[in-house]
Amino acid sequence: MPVAQERNLEAYCLDVARRAKAASAELAVAPGALKNAFLLDLARRLRAETEELLAANALDLAAAASFRLSDAQIDRLRLSARSVEAMAVAVEEVAALRDPVGEVIESSIRPNGLEVLKVRVPLGVVFFIYESRPNVTSDAAAVCVKSGNAVILRGGKEAAHTNQAIARVMSQAALAAGLPADAVQLVDTAQREAVGHFLALEEYIAVAIPRGGEGLIRRVANEARMPVIKHFTGNCHIYVDAAADLDMARRITINAKCQRMGVCNAAESLVVHAAVAAEFLPRAGAALTERGVEIRGDERTRELVPEAREADETDFAAEYLGPIISVKVVGSLEDAIEHVNHYGSGHTEAIITSDLAAARRFAARVDSSAVMVNASTRFNDGGELGLGAEIGISTDKLHARGPCGVKELTSYKYVVYGNGHLKDER
Amino acid sequence: MPVAQERNLEAYCLDVARRAKAASAELAVAPGALKNAFLLDLARRLRAETEELLAANALDLAAAASFRLSDAQIDRLRLSARSVEAMAVAVEEVAALRDPVGEVIESSIRPNGLEVLKVRVPLGVVFFIYESRPNVTSDAAAVCVKSGNAVILRGGKEAAHTNQAIARVMSQAALAAGLPADAVQLVDTAQREAVGHFLALEEYIAVAIPRGGEGLIRRVANEARMPVIKHFTGNCHIYVDAAADLDMARRITINAKCQRMGVCNAAESLVVHAAVAAEFLPRAGAALTERGVEIRGDERTRELVPEAREADETDFAAEYLGPIISVKVVGSLEDAIEHVNHYGSGHTEAIITSDLAAARRFAARVDSSAVMVNASTRFNDGGELGLGAEIGISTDKLHARGPCGVKELTSYKYVVYGNGHLKDER
Repeated sequence: MPVAQERNLEAYCLDVARRAKAASAELAVAPGALKNAFLLDLARRLRAETEELLAANALDLAAAASFRLSDAQIDRLRLSARSVEAMAVAVEEVAALRDPVGEVIESSIRPNGLEVLKVRVPLGVVFFIYESRPNVTSDAAAVCVKSGNAVILRGGKEAAHTNQAIARVMSQAALAAGLPADAVQLVDTAQREAVGHFLALEEYIAVAIPRGGEGLIRRVANEARMPVIKHFTGNCHIYVDAAADLDMARRITINAKCQRMGVCNAAESLVVHAAVAAEFLPRAGAALTERGVEIRGDERTRELVPEAREADETDFAAEYLGPIISVKVVGSLEDAIEHVNHYGSGHTEAIITSDLAAARRFAARVDSSAVMVNASTRFNDGGELGLGAEIGISTDKLHARGPCGVKELTSYKYVVYGNGHLKDER
Repeated sequence: MPVAQERNLEAYCLDVARRAKAASAELAVAPGALKNAFLLDLARRLRAETEELLAANALDLAAAASFRLSDAQIDRLRLSARSVEAMAVAVEEVAALRDPVGEVIESSIRPNGLEVLKVRVPLGVVFFIYESRPNVTSDAAAVCVKSGNAVILRGGKEAAHTNQAIARVMSQAALAAGLPADAVQLVDTAQREAVGHFLALEEYIAVAIPRGGEGLIRRVANEARMPVIKHFTGNCHIYVDAAADLDMARRITINAKCQRMGVCNAAESLVVHAAVAAEFLPRAGAALTERGVEIRGDERTRELVPEAREADETDFAAEYLGPIISVKVVGSLEDAIEHVNHYGSGHTEAIITSDLAAARRFAARVDSSAVMVNASTRFNDGGELGLGAEIGISTDKLHARGPCGVKELTSYKYVVYGNGHLKDER
């Protein structure tokens, strides 16, 4: 890129970030009614402008071949009247959430009479980098505004027209509601270098959130000078305990693996207690095979499931995101926990058991963002866990773990009331 | 360094980190009684071994000249019978805190009957890098163990003998209590490269916490591949509002500036509403000058305080940590908020006012970890705010903001109970 153009790009990014920071100061103290007025008006406008959104989306779909998108990617990119309606509903659901800002999280009166309030506050500016699915644009903006944050949206170039159309609707809604115009900004350049410029602006941007492939997340994590909320792989396990209801175990395994294969909370690995393997695995194996799922198992699994292929170390660590599952037979609950903690990615695991002690032990010792007891791994998302819409699912342990909704986009401050209190001179 | 030795160092660091990780899995599920038994025994042993600790400290003091330590640094390094007693008391205070691990932070029953618990869990392994003061060694270990984390302690080489002696006592207490021997490890090498090796071990270490000079913190923040809880500068403000009790304002200013000048929550800047400047500044100025504090002010300040020198931009942004204060006269509360947010470091600010609306507006709009209303900035520490002992004070906004006590060293996981729940097939 010529130097002059590079400078222009850098100046553009700095300007966007500065305006976002200024808007964030206003948004931080905006009353909930104002934020909700924006969200409800946005939902109304999304519905009203469905035709325009679909027309913009058609331009992206027409260009999809030139970006060499796969069929699955094109499917994710495609809008319909139904998906626009779903976008509007999602925004309304965010409006219905309780305003997280200003909540007194904890409070105490100290022995010296100081009153200490720990008050929830927004983070400031969120830089959100994401790929493909256009509904993410309005979801993310809604979650950020509800939590009092300004957001800089950087969508994929393959969805540029659709995202611009959605951003236009959001600008109109912001204007109508009296929200700062820069509360929601869509980055208006396809230049890849723009991301790098934003990631250096730690003075203005509080957090970077990448949502997409592992390459994108690694790049952002490496380059960002501000904190990053990361969403790495989900190598999720189902552990079928000795005390499992085996019919329930089979249904949950099928649901967790097959209900939607390409998502992070789908099961990738099945761990079975030796005491029930002979009864469980032949039937579960047949049910998986019937649904086109390839089984890669250890020796005992292959004895019980004739169609199983041999699993190696990479299989037990893999996030397939497709029709393959690894299977391991273990001698004890302890071995299951060790296997999960060794090969898992800390995303979501499930135990199927009617044994209370086993359930409690597994839940306490498995080091993952969510542990399901007698439920499908597929329930680890913001909506299902009651957080409302999410901007992503964190595989980090600091700040936010698991689904990131409006609360996870906040920080806190201490507000302390005294009446002339002096340190060590009480 | 020769390659062989470099390899040994790397292998040593990896071994320490691996052992810490293994210990952290045990500690994460250790009952509170076990952790408290360790802490109370540690306090007892610190008292019993006072003579040995002082003897080890004498070796460090004797070597202080060779490290070119300043008088202030030697003072921080020095132990006494009284400071060992204070270390023991601090450890007992941590024992008395409620165990944060296992707390159900939130819970709900979803419409489909799923029971969702958000449960507090430890982070894992904490890598703590600190300078000079030996009491930090036992404080940090106590806070980490109480919160169920293993800790790798990397103290300054100038305190090596003292830290080794404290670590020996901690090992004895761990052994006696039946805690994993590797729950608390002191890095046993003075080699600077060791820190770099640890900062690359993100697979084993959950968080790095540097506590010391800005150079140390920047190095750790730049090199660490795991999250870092940072403690940067404290450019703390006192704002004297138009509606301030001016006697209170003067007392708080003196306390915040002079009670202890070298600490992060000491005041560095005074902002005064023009309506009270003529009455407040001459007396406050005289009181500060009397205590040896140099005043650097804007034009109006210099008119009112003859001994004031001229302040420039760098003064308003400075953390002096010594006998200098910058002074600015502003025309309104809004100007005060803008000044504080522009020049401040987000650490601690105070407003002195009897005007409720002004207090609420300042507290809501100033973007700092703590806002004091009619109290000294010096109250922003873990003990004063009711968190107990702290491992540091965060100037970050993500994860932990302000004092980091036992709760700030935890994460959470979702534990979800169902009875065969399947996604989208309810």
